[in-house]
Amino acid sequence: MTIQTVGILSPGDMGGAIASVLNQNGLRTVSALGDRSERTKQLAIAAKVENVGTLEKLVIESDIILSVLVPSAATQIAKQVAVAIQKVGKNILYVDANAISPERVKAIQPIIEEAGGEFVDASIIGPPPRQPNSTRIYASGEKAELFAKLRDYGLDIRVIGSEIGQASGLKMCYAALTKGLTAISTELLIAAHRLNLDAELWQEISTSQKELLEYLNRQIPTMLPKAHRWVGEMEEIADTFGAVGLTERTFEGAADVYRFVKETSLGKETPEGRDTSRTLADIIAILSQDNISSST
Amino acid sequence: MTIQTVGILSPGDMGGAIASVLNQNGLRTVSALGDRSERTKQLAIAAKVENVGTLEKLVIESDIILSVLVPSAATQIAKQVAVAIQKVGKNILYVDANAISPERVKAIQPIIEEAGGEFVDASIIGPPPRQPNSTRIYASGEKAELFAKLRDYGLDIRVIGSEIGQASGLKMCYAALTKGLTAISTELLIAAHRLNLDAELWQEISTSQKELLEYLNRQIPTMLPKAHRWVGEMEEIADTFGAVGLTERTFEGAADVYRFVKETSLGKETPEGRDTSRTLADIIAILSQDNISSST
Repeated sequence: MTIQTVGILSPGDMGGAIASVLNQNGLRTVSALGDRSERTKQLAIAAKVENVGTLEKLVIESDIILSVLVPSAATQIAKQVAVAIQKVGKNILYVDANAISPERVKAIQPIIEEAGGEFVDASIIGPPPRQPNSTRIYASGEKAELFAKLRDYGLDIRVIGSEIGQASGLKMCYAALTKGLTAISTELLIAAHRLNLDAELWQEISTSQKELLEYLNRQIPTMLPKAHRWVGEMEEIADTFGAVGLTERTFEGAADVYRFVKETSLGKETPEGRDTSRTLADIIAILSQDNISSST
Repeated sequence: MTIQTVGILSPGDMGGAIASVLNQNGLRTVSALGDRSERTKQLAIAAKVENVGTLEKLVIESDIILSVLVPSAATQIAKQVAVAIQKVGKNILYVDANAISPERVKAIQPIIEEAGGEFVDASIIGPPPRQPNSTRIYASGEKAELFAKLRDYGLDIRVIGSEIGQASGLKMCYAALTKGLTAISTELLIAAHRLNLDAELWQEISTSQKELLEYLNRQIPTMLPKAHRWVGEMEEIADTFGAVGLTERTFEGAADVYRFVKETSLGKETPEGRDTSRTLADIIAILSQDNISSST
């Protein structure tokens, strides 16, 4: 397989940044933006992703299709692409890079393969790859080495095994650490604010948990515009942990926290549009007051 | 009020260490160990806490009574002490230093006051105070300054307000950070082990989340023998957060994780008896295999 064109579903914050890397390294990137949001279309233009219109056209034009969406959309888009693959009759490589549970990616595999495509499980750890060495893409499955050819075009792809589910499982465990910590921290800081104990808690944490406070100062502000995407990701983590005999409630709770945040004024900003001058204390005060009755 | 004798309920790991500090600074400490475990009696002897036998005797002998127990026992012991206060007819100062929700400590206050005692809310942040400057005791309530006289006898007591519930609320928010992070981390590391993805996860975390990994290396091994106590503490945090309109599921989940750990062979060791040579990877492997079907 010679790779010339990569189809991106969809070129949002993460997908767009990946497309930019591929473009800068000489590949053509395409997408099917028929009914996508104006913001996604703008990000695609910025990332120099060509809009070919329909999924059928995308299958015809692409050598690889990369699915990078909100977790809740992963299965549905795979079904739509499967229909296109069947119509076009092309043995295309489909890479699911969504933050979904191993069980769910294993259920997507036959949808693509029965339509005549080839399937790879992938997961992305790190921010959108705008800085070198910031972002790792893990891959697993029999065909993972085919996808790993994109290493030649600027992506840091690491094949970790031949089974579908491994790359997704790794992402779930990793995201549980970083996004789980961010979720419980956001919750407890809001609780302290509502209990009128902010000053005392900040004082205590800034001496005895200095490293964690620095972590929160970095993570919580950038989480806000992404909270709406993380709801589904926390639910996928809950499913992943439930499937190996562990409690689902921790990450159902984390999903509740991000559901809370996405309903606030801060949760409705975009990553590009957010006010970066706010302190963590400002943010917690706004979250505490914005959303008085949305707990589940 | 001149303080000569402090009653400790009960002189376990934390209560015993506090008693030792007071003893070393010239106070007498007493307890009522009628039906307590052999381990508690041994710890009391080691801490030079005199066993006066009954709660009535404890009320007679003490100037202050300090309650430091598992959260689930806090209300019941307060009721028993209230009966003793009433019988003895002494206006004693009762300090509830348990890890319980503001609502629960507010419900304990009238139990003591209606029996004729005075009440202070306190909470302990940090390890048992065996090293200087390691442990802070927060206090709140109208009578908090009376309790704060124990500063003269080696305790770092900080009065943060005049309302019952403030000291406990601070503890709940703080413990949510440290014990919440430890809970989700334990869960995700067990999940990675069961998914056979340990090596990949350790590798990823040891480069991209170095600080968090160091934190976990310190926290998870020492948590194991305390997990049985932390179940109730996580439930108190869930109640605290629910009372201010936030999700209870995160910390109900954290309680599930500690319930899981306490049922393993490692959860049944004592802080004194645990094998300190195990690596974090060893610990996670044992936890993963010990407790296959205890999730809720």
